[in-house]
Amino acid sequence: VTDARPDLTAIPHDECWRLLASVSVGRVAMQTAEGLVVVPVNCAVDSGEVVFRTAEGGLLGQAADWGRTVAFQADRFDETAREGWSVLVRGQLRRAGEAEAAGLAQLVAPWAGGERNVVGRIAASDISGRRIGARPAAEGG
Amino acid sequence: VTDARPDLTAIPHDECWRLLASVSVGRVAMQTAEGLVVVPVNCAVDSGEVVFRTAEGGLLGQAADWGRTVAFQADRFDETAREGWSVLVRGQLRRAGEAEAAGLAQLVAPWAGGERNVVGRIAASDISGRRIGARPAAEGG
Repeated sequence: VTDARPDLTAIPHDECWRLLASVSVGRVAMQTAEGLVVVPVNCAVDSGEVVFRTAEGGLLGQAADWGRTVAFQADRFDETAREGWSVLVRGQLRRAGEAEAAGLAQLVAPWAGGERNVVGRIAASDISGRRIGARPAAEGG
Repeated sequence: VTDARPDLTAIPHDECWRLLASVSVGRVAMQTAEGLVVVPVNCAVDSGEVVFRTAEGGLLGQAADWGRTVAFQADRFDETAREGWSVLVRGQLRRAGEAEAAGLAQLVAPWAGGERNVVGRIAASDISGRRIGARPAAEGG
C-alpha cells in the first residue's frame, strides 16, 4: 500500500492574510482566570489586524483581558477530501474605541443576539499557516 | 427594525460529547515555549476522553508538553444560516502508549503525510458548549 497522504506545507504570510480575510468566523484563544479558553468570534481583517466582535462581560469582553497577548486561529477543512488550511496569529489584544467600533460595524456583523458592542483588534506579532492537501484552483482568486 | 438575531444558548454536557463525537477535526490549544498555539488535529471521542493524533516533534508532539492542562475546541458553523455550535474541553494531556495508540489507529486516522504516530488523550476536567441559532432537526439523530 503506497502512502498517498499529502504532506503539510507552510503557507506564505501574504496568503495567510488572504485566507484570514476569506472567513467570517475564527477563534480567539487566551489564558483567563478560569483557564485557557477558545471562543469563536465573528471576524474580519482591517488594516493588517484581526478585528472581531464580542459581548461586554463575556469571556473575551472582560476588561482585565485587554492588552494581553492572545492567539487567533482560523481554518477551513474539507473532511471528505481531507484537505484544508489553518492560520495562527499571535499578538496583543486591544479594545477598539466607540467611534472605531461603530466604523467597523459593517465589517464584523455579529451573529448572536444581545449586545455585542465590543470590538477587539489583534495586532499580529507573528502569523503562520499550514495547508494539508492540494490548493483548490478556485480558492483565493 | 426588529432584532431577529438568535441568542447564544448553553449546550448540556451529554450533547457536548455527542457533538464532539460527530466531528473528525478539532483544535488543541496550549501554552508552549513559543507562545500560545492552536493546532488542528484529527480527533475522536473514546471512553469519555478526547483522542487525537499528531506528529512526533511537531508543536503538540514535544514531550515537554505532556501532562499539562490544555484546551480542546471543536465547532461547526453554517456561515450562511448564521448558526452553529462550539464545544470547549479543558483537561490534562496524556500521551497514549504504543499499544494503546495502535488500538486507536482506526479511530483517529491522520490526514497529513509523514509519521504521525503520536496519539494524545485529554481527560476532560470540564466541558462546555454554546449554540447559536436553532438546532437543526437532522443533527445528532
